[in-house]
Amino acid sequence: MASTIGISLLGAGNIGGAVVAAIQHAGERYAARVGAPLEIRRVLVRDTSKKRPGIDPSQITDSIDDVLADEGTSIVVEFMGGEEPARAYIEAALRSGRHVVTANKEVMAKHGASLLQLAYDNGVRLLYEASVGGGIPVIAPLSRDLLANEVTAVTAIINGTTNYMLTAMTQQGATYEDILAEAQRLGYAEPDPSADVEGIDAAFKIAVLCGLAFNVDVAPNEVDRRGISTITSRDIAYAAQLGYVVKLLARARIVGGEIEATVRPTLVGAMEPLAKVDGVLNAVQFEGDLVGRVMFEGPGAGQGPTASSILADVLDVGQDVARDRKPLAFIPRRKLRVRPPEEHTSRAYLRIGVKDQPGVLAAIATALGDEGVSISSVLQYDPEFTGGDPGTAELVLTTHSAPGRAFNAALDVIRELDAALEIGNVLPMEG
Amino acid sequence: MASTIGISLLGAGNIGGAVVAAIQHAGERYAARVGAPLEIRRVLVRDTSKKRPGIDPSQITDSIDDVLADEGTSIVVEFMGGEEPARAYIEAALRSGRHVVTANKEVMAKHGASLLQLAYDNGVRLLYEASVGGGIPVIAPLSRDLLANEVTAVTAIINGTTNYMLTAMTQQGATYEDILAEAQRLGYAEPDPSADVEGIDAAFKIAVLCGLAFNVDVAPNEVDRRGISTITSRDIAYAAQLGYVVKLLARARIVGGEIEATVRPTLVGAMEPLAKVDGVLNAVQFEGDLVGRVMFEGPGAGQGPTASSILADVLDVGQDVARDRKPLAFIPRRKLRVRPPEEHTSRAYLRIGVKDQPGVLAAIATALGDEGVSISSVLQYDPEFTGGDPGTAELVLTTHSAPGRAFNAALDVIRELDAALEIGNVLPMEG
Repeated sequence: MASTIGISLLGAGNIGGAVVAAIQHAGERYAARVGAPLEIRRVLVRDTSKKRPGIDPSQITDSIDDVLADEGTSIVVEFMGGEEPARAYIEAALRSGRHVVTANKEVMAKHGASLLQLAYDNGVRLLYEASVGGGIPVIAPLSRDLLANEVTAVTAIINGTTNYMLTAMTQQGATYEDILAEAQRLGYAEPDPSADVEGIDAAFKIAVLCGLAFNVDVAPNEVDRRGISTITSRDIAYAAQLGYVVKLLARARIVGGEIEATVRPTLVGAMEPLAKVDGVLNAVQFEGDLVGRVMFEGPGAGQGPTASSILADVLDVGQDVARDRKPLAFIPRRKLRVRPPEEHTSRAYLRIGVKDQPGVLAAIATALGDEGVSISSVLQYDPEFTGGDPGTAELVLTTHSAPGRAFNAALDVIRELDAALEIGNVLPMEG
Repeated sequence: MASTIGISLLGAGNIGGAVVAAIQHAGERYAARVGAPLEIRRVLVRDTSKKRPGIDPSQITDSIDDVLADEGTSIVVEFMGGEEPARAYIEAALRSGRHVVTANKEVMAKHGASLLQLAYDNGVRLLYEASVGGGIPVIAPLSRDLLANEVTAVTAIINGTTNYMLTAMTQQGATYEDILAEAQRLGYAEPDPSADVEGIDAAFKIAVLCGLAFNVDVAPNEVDRRGISTITSRDIAYAAQLGYVVKLLARARIVGGEIEATVRPTLVGAMEPLAKVDGVLNAVQFEGDLVGRVMFEGPGAGQGPTASSILADVLDVGQDVARDRKPLAFIPRRKLRVRPPEEHTSRAYLRIGVKDQPGVLAAIATALGDEGVSISSVLQYDPEFTGGDPGTAELVLTTHSAPGRAFNAALDVIRELDAALEIGNVLPMEG
């Protein structure tokens, strides 16, 4: 049995502070769970001159070599964020025989498969619960409570910024531009908001979830990704009239031995649990063959929730260190064919700006019908409502299920119609 | 390593059928997880002449001795329900050195502490994920993902029948009597609905959750329990006007080293995640010092979800059997003082039928104020709305937080007022 479990931190800041504070506050309880007390050894920072409350200045260093040279360190915890040098440091820590706990979605999305293999090859573990969904439990339910199920789909609201924005657009009727400015003022959105609003952050996280839920390796650039910047107040209003709510869904599912992974603004039926996840909350829904659907909802970010997940991983691997247990057998991630969006099948919402003249609906319906897309409902909105020019209108169509390729082909025809002024949003529908 | 893991079932029926079917369908996957194949050994039924699809007739028996005499059985799975003889059979199985997996909320609520001790004394495990929340993962998130947290409260919607009824009363404006009849027709409610509508089922489950979340032993009769049979359509309508939804909440929390455990119809703020859990869905929300609130939502009953939880337990203990691992050290459940409702503190909603005459509100406000209960809002509804006699009215008051004892004392005074015709519901408010 190890007498203490030495932990070094890569990164300080808010999350590091919360981790250190929790270990100081709940040290006895953690020691009882782990079988040995946790001890902070080294803290890697960029600026060693800055004061870090709760951290002994002698532990602070700006050199990764210093951390790795510390023989008392058995677990390295990384929450620097960003791809490099975080990835290189994680690799070095694993090669030096240290267990690693990381909150880094970008590194795990891009390099998870090879780093997990490297960890196994070095007889250590790499844990990453905090890299997705903040404080929401994901790993243990999958590895224990849902183990009897074949998990076939994961659907998640996994970016707090965009969910906050879409919720405000829905509940307050705010415009995209106004609510983005407000989110930036409140600190929910970055000055450059593209990682959030273009779905880049969500794409990292769904790639990580593909590994967790299916043990399948999906690269972030294999995720079919669309952001929310094209969503208008009218899309939100039309969706509401149809009984739907617009959410940025990150989704992965196994279909016929292949995988689909998407991040897309989606019309979600208003009675669905995911439709009711509002504000900065996140949620992850799993579908299993026995259990049906279960959803986990909670804070997707924040120092306390992130520290909660990091410490869960630390306590887990700490038990191994205390008892000198070796990692379990390792199953390398599978690589499945990633289905391109043309092969994805879904119902869809189409918003099309048209000249308000006879025959236009017939032409659009014909273009869709020729590709086998069958229409479920049609609504027409006049300039009075749309704010468009006189003599124009907006058609909102919903369809039955059809493959992406059929929609694309039909839209190519519609785009050429003299009466079609604008193909607005084409969004999948769920529930 | 064991070559096969022998499982005997106490009870057949739908859930047993689903468990057997899953083992047949996914046997290879389960064997890979466990380290040895699962094998059904004996199936205990009341009526041995009935056909059981998927079960070999030679495995069927109506004698528990027959099951316990089978040396190939290392795990006994119980889903007979009810207190006896299930409790006695579980005890006998544990004493005979068999691991037990049970879905029995009544037995675990009433006898959990002593049976868990008995299991430990016999070197075996007793697992019961399926006894609460159907397919919703509860055990692994608590024992792994939330382990770094001090869990201080559990709040749950944990009875599908009453949630279905309250949802219909809210969304369709149905009366309690009409919706109860409909629920009985649909099979969601029993001919004698008292176990559901009086909160007895929910009290069993919150008692089980006290063990899981806090390792505290709470007997079902220590749960302060109220059902939904006194909830009127007007309560639902008044709550809606105040921005609340009426839900039957099962709740437990640790306060000052003591425990509160309640099942009560509660006004839940409409924006709260629990307020949006509708129909037969269940949800369990945990509050931890680091993570804040996380909520797990899913099917609370049904053969697939229940089989999912039972099999999660079977695979977990099966891994121990395959590797000949001994159970971990056992921490006996704590017994804390259970706070009586007079000591519980909450905001409250009060509906009081009165004579519509000057001074009545003043007298009620004085009675509350004298006990230190401060009023937050007052609404008055006339007979036109309430359907009451001319010259009467209904007062709906909401209060700031106060102890149960203060409400009781004030209500004793109000009850004696000449102008007070009826103390309607007094319900706690959350969120």
